[in-house]
Amino acid sequence: MEPTLRDPTDPLIDHAEGQHFLNEAFKVIVEEVLCKGTDATQKVCEWKEPDELAVLLDLELREMGEPRGRLLQRVRDVAKFSVKTSHPRFFNQQFAGVDYHSLAGRFLTEALNTNLFTYEVAPVFVLMENEVLRSLRQLLGWTEGDGIFCPGGSMSNMYAINLARYRLFPEVKSQGLWSVPRLAIFTSPEVKITVSNSHYSVRKGAAFLGFGTDSLILVNVDDRGHMIPEDLDEKIELSKSQGVVPLLVSCTSGTTVQGAFDPLDQIADVCGKHKLWMHVDAAWGGSVLFSKQHRSLMKGIDRADSVAWNPHKMLLAGLQCSALLLKDTSQCHGANASYLFQQDKFYDVNLDVGDKSVQCSRKADCLKLWLMWKAIGSNGFEERVNKAFVLVRYLVDEMKNRDGFHLLNDPEFVNVCFWFIPPSLRGKEGNADYPSRLAKVAPVIKERMMKKGTLMVGYQPLGDKVNFFRVTVFSPLISHKDLDFFLDEIERLGINL
Amino acid sequence: MEPTLRDPTDPLIDHAEGQHFLNEAFKVIVEEVLCKGTDATQKVCEWKEPDELAVLLDLELREMGEPRGRLLQRVRDVAKFSVKTSHPRFFNQQFAGVDYHSLAGRFLTEALNTNLFTYEVAPVFVLMENEVLRSLRQLLGWTEGDGIFCPGGSMSNMYAINLARYRLFPEVKSQGLWSVPRLAIFTSPEVKITVSNSHYSVRKGAAFLGFGTDSLILVNVDDRGHMIPEDLDEKIELSKSQGVVPLLVSCTSGTTVQGAFDPLDQIADVCGKHKLWMHVDAAWGGSVLFSKQHRSLMKGIDRADSVAWNPHKMLLAGLQCSALLLKDTSQCHGANASYLFQQDKFYDVNLDVGDKSVQCSRKADCLKLWLMWKAIGSNGFEERVNKAFVLVRYLVDEMKNRDGFHLLNDPEFVNVCFWFIPPSLRGKEGNADYPSRLAKVAPVIKERMMKKGTLMVGYQPLGDKVNFFRVTVFSPLISHKDLDFFLDEIERLGINL
Ligand SMILES: Cc1ncc(COP(=O)(O)O)c(C=O)c1O
Ligand SMILES: Cc1ncc(COP(=O)(O)O)c(C=O)c1O
Repeated sequence: MEPTLRDPTDPLIDHAEGQHFLNEAFKVIVEEVLCKGTDATQKVCEWKEPDELAVLLDLELREMGEPRGRLLQRVRDVAKFSVKTSHPRFFNQQFAGVDYHSLAGRFLTEALNTNLFTYEVAPVFVLMENEVLRSLRQLLGWTEGDGIFCPGGSMSNMYAINLARYRLFPEVKSQGLWSVPRLAIFTSPEVKITVSNSHYSVRKGAAFLGFGTDSLILVNVDDRGHMIPEDLDEKIELSKSQGVVPLLVSCTSGTTVQGAFDPLDQIADVCGKHKLWMHVDAAWGGSVLFSKQHRSLMKGIDRADSVAWNPHKMLLAGLQCSALLLKDTSQCHGANASYLFQQDKFYDVNLDVGDKSVQCSRKADCLKLWLMWKAIGSNGFEERVNKAFVLVRYLVDEMKNRDGFHLLNDPEFVNVCFWFIPPSLRGKEGNADYPSRLAKVAPVIKERMMKKGTLMVGYQPLGDKVNFFRVTVFSPLISHKDLDFFLDEIERLGINL
Repeated sequence: MEPTLRDPTDPLIDHAEGQHFLNEAFKVIVEEVLCKGTDATQKVCEWKEPDELAVLLDLELREMGEPRGRLLQRVRDVAKFSVKTSHPRFFNQQFAGVDYHSLAGRFLTEALNTNLFTYEVAPVFVLMENEVLRSLRQLLGWTEGDGIFCPGGSMSNMYAINLARYRLFPEVKSQGLWSVPRLAIFTSPEVKITVSNSHYSVRKGAAFLGFGTDSLILVNVDDRGHMIPEDLDEKIELSKSQGVVPLLVSCTSGTTVQGAFDPLDQIADVCGKHKLWMHVDAAWGGSVLFSKQHRSLMKGIDRADSVAWNPHKMLLAGLQCSALLLKDTSQCHGANASYLFQQDKFYDVNLDVGDKSVQCSRKADCLKLWLMWKAIGSNGFEERVNKAFVLVRYLVDEMKNRDGFHLLNDPEFVNVCFWFIPPSLRGKEGNADYPSRLAKVAPVIKERMMKKGTLMVGYQPLGDKVNFFRVTVFSPLISHKDLDFFLDEIERLGINL
């Protein structure tokens, strides 16, 4: 499409040509991403060094456009060199797998290209978001409340902190933090000796919202990473005695690395006693609420003031889909921009939800979850959650049966943290250089798997624990044989270390 | 899909069945959204009252899933009752039209479902985002710098404010606003007599980031809505004399309602004199930089410290696509979560961009823009921008030729603000009840067009100006005949008022 002197009365886009391209691109997507990308006999990633990949992709943007064939090849290349996150051997992150109903919802959302702003411009999505949030709240045991979909769990956590601040000191919205006493946010440490607990977004949020990271008061955790309610109580008393006003507790249902669930009921008692806002970061763990068998992990959730829950993680809704759920219904983010939210409309302007958000344009993140939910029902989600726990049990049992796999501890959720001990290190636990040698194992296995393209799983150090793997097992696409492969492949990659 | 006692060794999702559904859904999307939805002979919206629509959509989420045919009908219903934002008669927002290359990029992004986090998990997108940001910075006239895609321009503006605060007082990240003097943010008023200027996100941002909305110091504007640099200078001096530290000026290139461009060069002089961070909110207007003919509207942009630019608006990249561009390269958002960003990787960990963001999961918003840019080149964007200005000129000339259309003023950009004066009010400007009667015209025309489904355009009051329409003319899909229709239809709808 070169710039030519076209008649300005003509549109610049040809629908037939455009739809033809879209059709061809759709076929490439199905073939490369959905067929090959989920086929266990194909690679999960096609590793290239950054410099090499940059050349292969020819990323530079130029003055002139390119012909259709070249563009389709670009679609194919992007697919080819991207990681196949739906692949049954992708265990690297807190998302994996693909749900086709959700994906159809995502395509539809993109094609409709609207903004969750007013009822007028997004009638379907305004009503649908309300209904989806209501259904999520129902799982928390709340009969009323509010909520909003945010661009990720980190933002959801920030909203909660901001709302808590507003509830306690509404003047902060106009006068700023200078007008209020120092405030404290209580959460568990991100890294403490052997465990990881609260997500780093609480810290980032404290900085972004102007509190500063020193406002975080870290509550002790037990050896499995659960916040200790008695210590919370003491820390609250202590900060009060120092003239700081305790604002909020952010506890976690399903920590990022180890999948620990904080004891919500006891924390709620402490919050009740001190009148603190209780926020639960259930970004990762919230989905257990679908399971009658496992939802007791979150006993006490009905007592929270706010909950962050990411259906884009365990539920496969696809990035981004994160709900902030609120028990209280008083708003704080409104800017009352009368040029955007006119009050003299011919319908109920309470449906103009845009002013609830600190965003202005906001993607419709509800349809994909809604369509998937319609397709499989709450029962379908329950089955998936239960299955994940069964698979984790299988994996853990297999690890215990094999030499060389050493668990950090018995998993509470679908995160399994373990070291692979290569033969050369077995029985050498007492040696002085054991930890430093073990620390080098995971990075090398990781490099090998990436270059071979057979598997993806992440590792990290944590406090005094040297690099270990964390595998997340929840994709409904996987089966025992994928877990067998997982273990075999780790052994193959690490046997000679 | 009912829950049955399935063998846990089996996957829960059937790819063949899933892909079949996706194929069928794709056909519905093409037919309903892309064919009918862009066909001028079809409705732009299918208005239903909220209660009625809720019943039609049967939104409730239940225990049991539904069969394929029912789900496809749901896809069709969502499409049917949603507003067709790509329709040539949709002038309601700062987005409109459809670009098929961008849309293909969006489908591919959704299917790949990744997270712009580390090179390991998003190799293509990490490199691509860098390149797209570099190309956008080049248009600003910068040879180096940094940047990030944010979930919307409001977030981009907040990032800029946060970075400015960090540059001036790095200790604020740990110690919070209590540790620093009161800070002031300068911007033009959102509503001032006849003009609208800065976007309300600056105000929301000031509240969210803990400054409070009182930290905003409103700079006077001329009668077209341009910030007056001399007044900025005086306001800065004044706040200094009051012991407040001036932090940042947020000026606007392309205001939301009227499309005004602030005089950047003169504002840069004032910022230089006082060492203030100069942020330019070019969310809406930034795209003029593609046009040799029109980019002088943003003369001085190279002197800014940060720029927010939304390709999801005028460039048709699709929601969400918003870049924050930074001249400085020092980072502030990092949380250094070692469990997420391991330092002992086998590639350059500077490519692990996740820690730049206050988000954790972050959608890949670059591919759609990149693919569209590859398809039409910078020249293609230039042609689209130039064409928009030509169409605006045509519309304005037509309005001047017709009775009953009264412009607020001659447009500087692609926003055209006007009143429709129905015959019964013509020549009655002197009457005491004229403003109150005129105020009622736009809402009634709006209601009629929505119920008829022929057109969508927004209205608002502004200061002492009663309700007027703002039409944005930039979709490359439209032509003179769509603008003729626009005027004819407004006349038809308002003639008897
Ligand atoms: C416990 C927890 N909270 C919050 C988040 C952040 O969610 P998001 O990635 O959507 O910002 C995560 C995800 O990594 C998480 O595991
Ligand atoms: C001038 C201006 N700035 C910022 C924004 C906010 O951008 P977004 O809607 O992406 O948050 C808008 C959009 O309405 C705008 O017009």
